[in-house]
This record gives sequence, structure tokens and C-alpha cells, in this order.
Amino acid sequence: MKTKPKAVVLFSGGQDSATCLAQACADFGNDVVAVGFDYGQRHKIELEQAKILAELGGVSYRIIDLNFISQLTPNSLTDASIEIDHKEGELPSTFVPGRNLFFISVGAVIARQLGAPYLYIGICQTDYSGYPDCRDDFIKATQQTVNLAMETDLEIRTPLMWLTKAETVTLMADLGRLDWYKESHTCYEGSRPACGKCPACLLRLKGFEEAGISDPLSYQ
Amino acid sequence: MKTKPKAVVLFSGGQDSATCLAQACADFGNDVVAVGFDYGQRHKIELEQAKILAELGGVSYRIIDLNFISQLTPNSLTDASIEIDHKEGELPSTFVPGRNLFFISVGAVIARQLGAPYLYIGICQTDYSGYPDCRDDFIKATQQTVNLAMETDLEIRTPLMWLTKAETVTLMADLGRLDWYKESHTCYEGSRPACGKCPACLLRLKGFEEAGISDPLSYQ
Repeated sequence: MKTKPKAVVLFSGGQDSATCLAQACADFGNDVVAVGFDYGQRHKIELEQAKILAELGGVSYRIIDLNFISQLTPNSLTDASIEIDHKEGELPSTFVPGRNLFFISVGAVIARQLGAPYLYIGICQTDYSGYPDCRDDFIKATQQTVNLAMETDLEIRTPLMWLTKAETVTLMADLGRLDWYKESHTCYEGSRPACGKCPACLLRLKGFEEAGISDPLSYQ
Repeated sequence: MKTKPKAVVLFSGGQDSATCLAQACADFGNDVVAVGFDYGQRHKIELEQAKILAELGGVSYRIIDLNFISQLTPNSLTDASIEIDHKEGELPSTFVPGRNLFFISVGAVIARQLGAPYLYIGICQTDYSGYPDCRDDFIKATQQTVNLAMETDLEIRTPLMWLTKAETVTLMADLGRLDWYKESHTCYEGSRPACGKCPACLLRLKGFEEAGISDPLSYQ
């Protein structure tokens, strides 16, 4: 990289973070650093897909080991012996407490270190699936907190916050990167071709259907 | 432990966190869980001292591996090749960006998991040594952020926030636990007996002198 990066993008290799990376690249070319996390997720295949996507975007990509997260609390996203479900009135079993707070905090430390003024994260209140750490008030509080923690002036950008999944697909089409979705990983079960049945796959497929665009990803 | 713990105490084994643990034990007996962190600190000896102190307090103690922190940014607290200093108008070289945010976030996840309503941390704005993440506004923002992240109602308690080091020593005397200071570790150089010369040792010694109480710790 020749110039100081402008943005750090939290990058899981999923559909939303791929769209978010495409937006950051539209804003800053490849003065962008993608950061992924290994936290014991059962869909670890996303880290491989993230690498492929970062190469497509021409941006650097690094993985931070946050395996301590999966040791803090039981959840079905990091423990395959727990069933993936979502009971009425409860948080989903896939909720990993503190996950986005850890991700953003690490991203903020890296942004400070690199001198990047922006941090992108592809979270979304509209389709937030019951996760409290995907809401806008959480992001606003976190931006204030990380800046107080380090005497920085980082701006957290959430280009997908108020979009439906269909609008996210349309945004990606407008950015001319629809082909990236072939490599993006969504399935909670970690399957490629994707299972097409878990909550994450169903949400993805619904979005494409509503956008009237076909998903380039392979399904079982 | 027979009952659900009332408090998680972030516990480095240093003077301030020992005082904080003593306060939590005064508030809740031994319905308290002490949590320490291995983050590649050069004064790792504090983890051993923390274990001794937790036994003195009759509370359970666990260490969480946060070694990823030392890989994010260079600092003299985790990299012995960097000199410990503090230039005018700059953050101290011992500043580990994001450290207290990571510690509190992990503590909050553990507190949620255990059902403990309180989190204690022995940070202090009065003697804050230039660390922005030891200030009260940071704590208030962080409390809001962790609660938004996990839909919890955790209260972060900072009994030392507005105390001078001398007042902290006096508090420990009032709590009847002055003997714990013999085991508490402060020295940045990781020396036991303590070096007596690094900024942390000097601050500690000044506090005892001002309180008119002698430090039971051994110095070189």
C-alpha cells in the first residue's frame, strides 16, 4: 500500500460486509484495509471467502484471532452442539454476547494505528434478526466510547443500517460489484454450496427475491 | 460457590485492583468473581500475585487470554524493546490502546453469563497517568455501550475513581485489608522485590508517604 489507508472495513466475507467493502472501495479506491476475525465460528469457511473477496477488491486483508470470545459464553454460532434457533421473546441462540463490540473495538485500535479516519461495518438495524448489537443506538454509543478510550476522532460508517436486504442487493448492483456475491458466504451451517435452509440463508434469498435479482451463489 | 455471584471484579493483582476487590468483598462477602487478563504484559508476575490475593479474599479467580491485544499496536507495556517513558503532550509509551475497553467488555460478558449485576474496576481519574481510558466519562460511555450491546442492566462501579493514591491506601486500611498490599504487584518492570524507580512504583510510594502508612511490599 502506497498511501495511508482511509478506512478499515470489518469484513466477515458475508453478503453485508461484501457490500460494505464495495461501498468503502467506491469511496476510497483501494486505500482500504479489510479486517476479519477468527472467533471459533462454525462457519469458518467465511474467512477463506473473505480472502478471495479482498483480492477481488484489491485491498489488503488481515485476520485477528479472537478465539477467546467463544470461550466466554455458550452459543450456537461457536458451539455446534447447540441448536440454531430463535424462541419468541428471547435472544437468538446464535447471539454471541459482545461480539460486535469486540470487533469494532479491535477495528478502532487498528484504524488508530494506521491513521485511518473511518471504520466501516455492514450491520443493519432493518434486518437485525434480534441482535441488539446491530442497532444504530449501539453504534452511536460505541463510536463515542472508542474515541473516549483512545483520544481519537474515528467515524463509524454503517452504509447498510437502514436498508432492507433487497435494498442492499440493489446497492451492490448500483456499485457494479454484484459478481462479488458469488464468493460471499452467508450460511450459518458453513456449507458451500449453501444449505439454503438456515435463518441466514433464508434472509439472503428473500432479499434477492424482493430485489428481483438472482443470487449468483450456489445452493444445495 | 453456592450462590449466584453479585459482582465481577476486574483484577490485575495491582494495588488499585486489590483495593477494589477488598471493597467488593466488603459489599458482597465472597459472592465475587475476580477476572484477570493475560495480554502479553511484561509484568506478567502480577497474574501469580492476583491468584494469591484471590485466595486471601476467598473468591474465585479466572484468567482470560487476551494476547491478541499486544499484537495490535506497539507499546512499552507489552514490548520490552520499547522504553517506558512519557513525553510532554503525548500519551505515555505504556498506553495500550483499547485495553480497558477490552477488559470491561470481557468482564461485562462474564457478568451477564453469571447473572452478576455489578462490575468493579479499580481505575482512577485522579491519578490517571495520562490514560484516557481511566476517566469517568469513558466509564459512563462504556457502561451504556455494553448494556446496549447485550440488552443488560450492568452497573460499573469504580470505587477509586475520585481518590488520590493516599486516599486509596487509607480506604484499604479502613477495610482492614492493608496486609493484602504485601502481595499486590505494581512495578511495570515486573520485579519482585519491586524496582522502586518506574513510574508505577513511584506513584505507589508517594501514595503511602502521603497517607502516613508504610507499604508492606518489599523493594530492592
